[in-house]
Amino acid sequence: MKNLQERILSEGANLGNGILKVDSFVNHQVDPMLMDTCGKEFARRFKSLGATKVLTAEISGIAPAVTTALHLGLPVVYARKHKPITMPDQVLLTLAPSHTKGRTVELIVSPEYLAGGERVLIIDDFLASGQTILGLVRLAQTAGSTVVGIGALIEKTFEGGRDALKSLEVPIQALARISSMEDGVIEFED
Amino acid sequence: MKNLQERILSEGANLGNGILKVDSFVNHQVDPMLMDTCGKEFARRFKSLGATKVLTAEISGIAPAVTTALHLGLPVVYARKHKPITMPDQVLLTLAPSHTKGRTVELIVSPEYLAGGERVLIIDDFLASGQTILGLVRLAQTAGSTVVGIGALIEKTFEGGRDALKSLEVPIQALARISSMEDGVIEFED
Repeated sequence: MKNLQERILSEGANLGNGILKVDSFVNHQVDPMLMDTCGKEFARRFKSLGATKVLTAEISGIAPAVTTALHLGLPVVYARKHKPITMPDQVLLTLAPSHTKGRTVELIVSPEYLAGGERVLIIDDFLASGQTILGLVRLAQTAGSTVVGIGALIEKTFEGGRDALKSLEVPIQALARISSMEDGVIEFED
Repeated sequence: MKNLQERILSEGANLGNGILKVDSFVNHQVDPMLMDTCGKEFARRFKSLGATKVLTAEISGIAPAVTTALHLGLPVVYARKHKPITMPDQVLLTLAPSHTKGRTVELIVSPEYLAGGERVLIIDDFLASGQTILGLVRLAQTAGSTVVGIGALIEKTFEGGRDALKSLEVPIQALARISSMEDGVIEFED
């Protein structure tokens, strides 16, 4: 998506080690108009899948997941990283290694809101190694749901996430696909 | 707002000790259509304030803040509770006691995205004791910005938050105002 690529080029900061800082429009400050445009585009690409629920991970997945779900007319569930007191004792929990955090994080969903028979569309901000998204896939499958599609705002194709998700045989869509961040230069796939 | 009140009555769970569980449409599962309606209503109520930025706290404030900002055409900043690696070393940080967490949480904003001269509209999911919102107010004021309005989806009027914020002399709007949760019954102000 052209306008997302342009924002990455104009405002994204390549911090080295494959870390892309997009804190001015995705990860700390959010541009709601851009998120709405991205949500509309995801809805267009995924509308034929018959999804019944959008699943994401807190925190940065929430904005694009909410706008996507708004355009599809679906509820969103965001996996929590800490169990809140309002959640029942029996939860769905999986562990996902976080590259940028340098540690393993918990992804927790209440079975109240992810039940068997759902058709789950996963939306997140980044597709890098794919470990967070694979964690969400495990939660959905453990609940007895079917993952029908995966969308990410930004893919770093050189981190292998798409390969890690290939065996699911579902459509994977990224709105900006970065093929290289070497020598401080951000290059796109297309 | 009638439809928010109705959702609270039909799906909210009164867990006792003033804890209202609205995990099926605000805090874990999100109803994006309801959030969009709430955002539109906040935008209508606050549109004359000349706000230049919406400020909220992760995690549950993000959805209503994003939809409000979308309808106002403004960027959103969400205060982080843990400093990510993409944030500079020099940050704006304040501490806020969290009633539902039973401990103090950090609220962190990068000065890159909250600078002097902004007119800040604070949006959050709950107005209870007002401590989280007061923390956001301190961050905005430390940055040299002016808080021009405060909005919450749900106010628990019996926890005194509105009084705690009174000295700011800014409009405070809540879309559903709960006056009592005693004996397991949820009562609204209006």
